[in-house]
Parts: sequence; C-alpha cells; structure tokens
Amino acid sequence: MKTKKISAEQELEAKGRAAKEASRKMAYISTEIKNKALHNIADDLISKQDEILKANKKDYDAARKSGMNSAMLDRLMLNVARLEGMSKDVLAVAALADPVGEVFEMRTMPNGLQIGKKRVPIGVIGAIYESRPNVTIDISVLCLKSGNAVFLRGGSETIHSNTALVKLIRNAVKRAGLPEDAVQFVDNTDRSLVGHILKMKTIDMIVPRGGAQLISFVAENASMPVLTGGIGVCHTYVDKTADINKAVAIVFNAKVQRPTVCNALDTIILHKDIAKEFLPLMAAELAKAKVELHCDQKSLKLVKESGIKAIPAVASDWGKEYLSLVAAVKTVDSLDEALAHIERYGSGHSEAIVTEDYTSGQRFLNEVDAAAVYVNASTRYTDGGQFGLGAEVGISTQKMHARGPMGLKELTSYKWIIYGNGQVRP
Amino acid sequence: MKTKKISAEQELEAKGRAAKEASRKMAYISTEIKNKALHNIADDLISKQDEILKANKKDYDAARKSGMNSAMLDRLMLNVARLEGMSKDVLAVAALADPVGEVFEMRTMPNGLQIGKKRVPIGVIGAIYESRPNVTIDISVLCLKSGNAVFLRGGSETIHSNTALVKLIRNAVKRAGLPEDAVQFVDNTDRSLVGHILKMKTIDMIVPRGGAQLISFVAENASMPVLTGGIGVCHTYVDKTADINKAVAIVFNAKVQRPTVCNALDTIILHKDIAKEFLPLMAAELAKAKVELHCDQKSLKLVKESGIKAIPAVASDWGKEYLSLVAAVKTVDSLDEALAHIERYGSGHSEAIVTEDYTSGQRFLNEVDAAAVYVNASTRYTDGGQFGLGAEVGISTQKMHARGPMGLKELTSYKWIIYGNGQVRP
Repeated sequence: MKTKKISAEQELEAKGRAAKEASRKMAYISTEIKNKALHNIADDLISKQDEILKANKKDYDAARKSGMNSAMLDRLMLNVARLEGMSKDVLAVAALADPVGEVFEMRTMPNGLQIGKKRVPIGVIGAIYESRPNVTIDISVLCLKSGNAVFLRGGSETIHSNTALVKLIRNAVKRAGLPEDAVQFVDNTDRSLVGHILKMKTIDMIVPRGGAQLISFVAENASMPVLTGGIGVCHTYVDKTADINKAVAIVFNAKVQRPTVCNALDTIILHKDIAKEFLPLMAAELAKAKVELHCDQKSLKLVKESGIKAIPAVASDWGKEYLSLVAAVKTVDSLDEALAHIERYGSGHSEAIVTEDYTSGQRFLNEVDAAAVYVNASTRYTDGGQFGLGAEVGISTQKMHARGPMGLKELTSYKWIIYGNGQVRP
Repeated sequence: MKTKKISAEQELEAKGRAAKEASRKMAYISTEIKNKALHNIADDLISKQDEILKANKKDYDAARKSGMNSAMLDRLMLNVARLEGMSKDVLAVAALADPVGEVFEMRTMPNGLQIGKKRVPIGVIGAIYESRPNVTIDISVLCLKSGNAVFLRGGSETIHSNTALVKLIRNAVKRAGLPEDAVQFVDNTDRSLVGHILKMKTIDMIVPRGGAQLISFVAENASMPVLTGGIGVCHTYVDKTADINKAVAIVFNAKVQRPTVCNALDTIILHKDIAKEFLPLMAAELAKAKVELHCDQKSLKLVKESGIKAIPAVASDWGKEYLSLVAAVKTVDSLDEALAHIERYGSGHSEAIVTEDYTSGQRFLNEVDAAAVYVNASTRYTDGGQFGLGAEVGISTQKMHARGPMGLKELTSYKWIIYGNGQVRP
C-alpha cells in the first residue's frame, strides 16, 4: 500500500514536470496556432460526440445508482445540445484577443533606456473542480489561449467524461502543433492525492471551482497562490429615495433569475421610510416566484399585513448564502446602518444600492468593499461575459492579482523589458 | 509563562483589529490629507532628530557590544545626514500621484450599464523586516500614501529606533487628521510571535524585507498572500556579436557599482567565439575593482593566459547569489545554451544580454522568464526609482499581482463599479 501511494505521487510529479516543460513552449507560441488548437477542440466536440456521450453515460449511470440527487445529476449530464453549446463557447474564446505579448506602459527614460511591460503567461495553472464536465473544456481552453499549461483534477463522479474530454483536447492540441503535455489530467481519483497536488512546486497558481468546502480546503492548504472566490453573500439595499418600480424589478431579478449562483441576492436591506410602500409590492412579486422571506421584526409585520406569508429571521440568516429561493429581509434606519450590515455580513462579492439620491449612490460605490458594487442594477450582472471579458475562469473575491470576473488577462503576468544602448547605472 | 504568551498574542490581535478598522477610514481619505501626513513626517524627521538619534544610539551601542559586524552596524546607524535623506525621500513620495480612486477601463455596455474599475487600497499591509530602521519610514509612507494601514514588525536589533520612529509617524499622522491606528508596530521582540503574525486574518498581505532565510520563512508560513522577492541570481550573457566596449562597461557596472544588492551580477556567460577577445579586457577591468573570478575550464585558461588571477568554478558557483565582489564565468557554444543555463540557475530577477544581433536580442527578451530582461544595459537598473515608479516597497520575483519593482500602484487593488438605470439580467 505504501509503495503504491508513493508511485501515485511520483506520477503526479512527472505530470507536473511535463506541464512545466510544455508551459515554456506555450509561452511564445503564435495566436494563430493556439486558435487552431481551439478550433480543433470545437470541431472534435461535434465529430467525436458518440465517444464523449458514451463515457458520460458511464458516469451518469454510476451516479444515479449511488443515489445522486436530480440537480447534481443534471449538472453531470452531457447531451448533443450541451456539446454543441460547449463547442460554440470554445469558438467564442478563439475569437477573443490574445492577451499574451501585449507591450504596455512603454516609455523612454531620460537616459535613453526604453522600459515597458510585456504580458506573459503565468505558467502552469492547476484546477481542482467538481461535477460539471464542461469545466474541463472551459478551463483548458482559457489556459491554452492565454499561453498557459493546465493541470486538471476533476471530481471522481465525472472521471469517465473527463478522461474522454482530456483525450479529445490533447489530440486536438497536438494536431495544431502545440505540446499535448500542456494539458495534464489526474486520472487517479484517490482523494488524498489532492493534498499532494496543493504542494506541487511545478504548479504556479490554483483555481478551485466547486462548493464552499472545496474552496476553503484549497485556500487553506495550497502552498502556491490560489484564486478563490465564488462565495457570494449579496445584499441589495433599497434606499429611502429608491424608485419603487426599479427596486422591485432589481430585487426580483437578483433573487429569482438564477437563484443557485453566487451573484444571486441573499438579503434585502431596506430603509424604514420606504418599507411601508415598497415591501407589500415586493413581497407580492416575490411570492409569485415562491420566494420564502425570512424577515426581521419590522418587515415581518408589514409583509404579514399585506397578506403574504413570511417567517421570522434568526441570527444565522444574516450573512447566509442561500443558493435557493429564500431571501432575508432587514430594515435599517439609515444608509450608515446598511453599510455597516454589509461590511459585517457581506462576502465581498456583489452588492447593490437602489437609490435616486446622488450622494447615497456615490457613498455606496466608494464605501462598500466588494468585487462589484452596483447602483440601480441587478447583482446578477457580475459575470465575465456580462462585463465584456468574453469568458471567465471564475469570480475572485480576493484583492490580490485579480478581483471579480477573471478572464484571459487575469491568467497572465508581465515582465519588464528594457532596450538599452550600453547604459550603465551612475 | 503560558498566560504571558497568550496575552502577547491577544495584543497582536488587538493591533490587527485596530489596523483593520483604520484601513476602512484610510480607503477614502483625500490625497490632500494623506500628503499632509507625509509632510508632517518629513518635518518631524528633522525637528525631532535628537529623540530619534538618542534611541538609535541605544540600538547601536547594544549591537556593537554584542559583536555585530561593521557592515551590519553601518546599516543600523542613523545620523543627521541620513535623517535628512529619509525626510527628502518622504517628500518625494508625497509628490507622487495618488493611485487610489483612479477609474479605468470604464465603458458603456449595449444595455446601458456603465462598467469600470476603480483603484482601491488593499487594506492592511504587514511588513516583517530586519536591521535598517529607514524601512520603518519607507514602508509606512508608501502604505499611507496608497491608503493602506500598515502592521510593522522590525528586527529586535532596531527596537529602540523603530519605537521612536513609529511614535513620530503616529503623531504626524494624527495631526494631519488620519487615524493613528493606521500604523501599528509590534514592540514585543519575542521571535516566536512572528509565526502568529503570519496567520493573522486582519492582515491582507505580507511584505518580507531582509535576508533569504527571513523571506523563505515568511513565504512558507504565511496564510495571507506574500509579495516575495529580493533574491537575485543575475546573469549577463555576452553574445558573439556583442560590442566589446559596451559589454565590458555593462558587466563591470552590473558587478561592481553596488555588489551587495539583489540586481548585481552573479554570473557572466559568454559565447565561445567572443571569449578570446573579450575575456582579457573584462578580467583586467574587473581586477581593478578586486573582483574574484570563479571560471569554468575554458574561461579559466584564457584569463590566466592574460596574466590575471582566477580560480576554478565549482558546481555550487552556478546559481549562487554572491552579494560581494565575486563573479562566476561560464562559456557557452550558443545562445540556446545560455538560455538553458539561465532557465536552470536564474532566480527570475534580472537578466541581460549584450548583443548587436537583432534576433538574439529579441529571442532573449521573449524567452527569458524573469521580472526584468535587458538588452544592452546593466541589470543594476531594476529599481522602482530607475523604472519611473518613484519609490518601491520591494522587488517581486513572483508572477502574481506584481512583478519587478513594486511602487504605490502595486499596493492597491481595484473594485468593479457599475452605474445602472434599473437594468435587470434577461
């Protein structure tokens, strides 16, 4: 048993070294060739669909047998339409501008030195993720386009799908003239190996994608930088000067349009002066979508008076990420109280104010410390596509390196390049 | 003993919380007030010099008594001229543009949303450093100007100097109307507390400044992001087409101008075709400055033939950071061999090529993976001041967040700000 474990770890190390070596070649490969690889992947997702779907069916059947719930099963499942969607997404990334090689902030110093920055890939990006097999394609394609190698560790529940998809990617990459070792996949599903991966010196950065537990495990145990995020406790504050119609529409959209994602609303904060007018309208609207309201004392009274059901909020409702059709409701006496609540309970993801007051809007934008801060719009917009990045590898709630949606550029670094003419420092 | 330890850690936590709270106020304080604080500090470094020098003398006398070597003693010592220099440096930072509040990449999306990024401070910057008391002023001033709070832990050998300087800074800051708690200082010199600091949740980022041992201890043990760097194993490659005069001047400058710093030259790599002409000139020049050469076989022969002393290089010479008047010399058959040597032994800090060949220069710039890559200039230029940043908190050899000299901008993050008009996501 001991020797088997050692060899599994040695295998990981060998894959890490292969990825590292491939990443050196990837760093200065032309956009043309990288795009060719992406087009090959897009084509193969259509032409090799039988193979992928067959592998996916194995995962699906095993998962159903093991009693996986229907929401999870749905995430796991691939079909022709989904493969077509994935193929289109790959082509969309191919169409994006290549960030690598951009030279910026270049200037000539008084001594004649030309000093600037040149955008370069990071190296080897590790990805630790769960369930959805499309993440295998998404992350690989974003890493390849940005000139990085990728080291993938997906969930054991999708091992057959991922194995087939990685085989497809590596073949497509090789045909385009890229090193196939730029895509490494851990086919050993032994969970204890994750701890080893998180200490590997050949991986330059780790992106965890999955539930809160996975993300915090990776953040706490990785020795390389981690781009964490995805935990969104999102508030929408309805100011006393809010336009009631905008407020109802924004709150409804933020809560209902897709409740299972990180940028969905969790807590509605409302100014006491607008509560009487706003709450009955909002509660009626949310009731149509079967949203369950957990209300503080003041708001509970008003909601009940309007004939809508609601339950009293408890302490654990504040700061809770519901990921479902539940919202907490909190009444405040002032903008300051709203800001203090958000500071205490927010997760630094997406926060919104609905107001017609200039100063309240500006103060909210300035004082809320989150990746995305909105005036008069739904927090559901926090997304790489919606923000114009084209695609995203995740949403960072950190402040270092990248914050908010992370696209191709966020998978790069830079180096300083200096053109001299014999200059020496006096 | 147990209770005493607990209370020291509780004290650290209290300082961390105070810094965190102050950082929230610092985030939206005007540039005017921040500059006022910096001017106060600059003034006080002159007007309160007696107090500072008295405290510094205590450290100096104790260090001399304990047998500290003269180079270290010199680093530790303050005098009127040095305080005047520090005061001028503070004014230089005050004169720099404030990065905080800059709005960039702002655009209007097709749906009318205005989406952009706004530069914000990171929060609380931790600094763990050794000997030079001026670091206390440097880092505090850079953090304050960039809207951050700072949590300082200096060396025990400078405890009296640092205590006096921090008292000066906090007083100057307070008079300007900034929260004095934005500057926290650990006056307990118990080394075991450093481990606790590295796990504090109230510190957002750590900058270690000091020797290789300190830096790697911090990098390995910190739970927050660390901006490491400062280890520079720097090569200068003299290509076969190099202009001999430029090559001699650049190598001499990179090695001799200030050998004790991270961007100084460690290894000279030279193409075999230029060795015969270049080496005797270079060796004679370096001999004038008493540089000791550790040569590979080929270069040793040539140097000795020219009547200059040199010793044979051993395996440990490659990849060694000398920080003194020693240089290794390595002969190669090709640019590829030089690139491979740098990839294997470089620390990703500063690397240079001397060449008149267009393609060799371009290949070197593209293929060398380092924070700063030079054509025909001395690696000694890798410095915040020389690169036009005005001042630096250190030189990063990481690829995440910041690479190379880190100035005010590198002490900031950004948030996405979104101005809407009632938009909801379809």
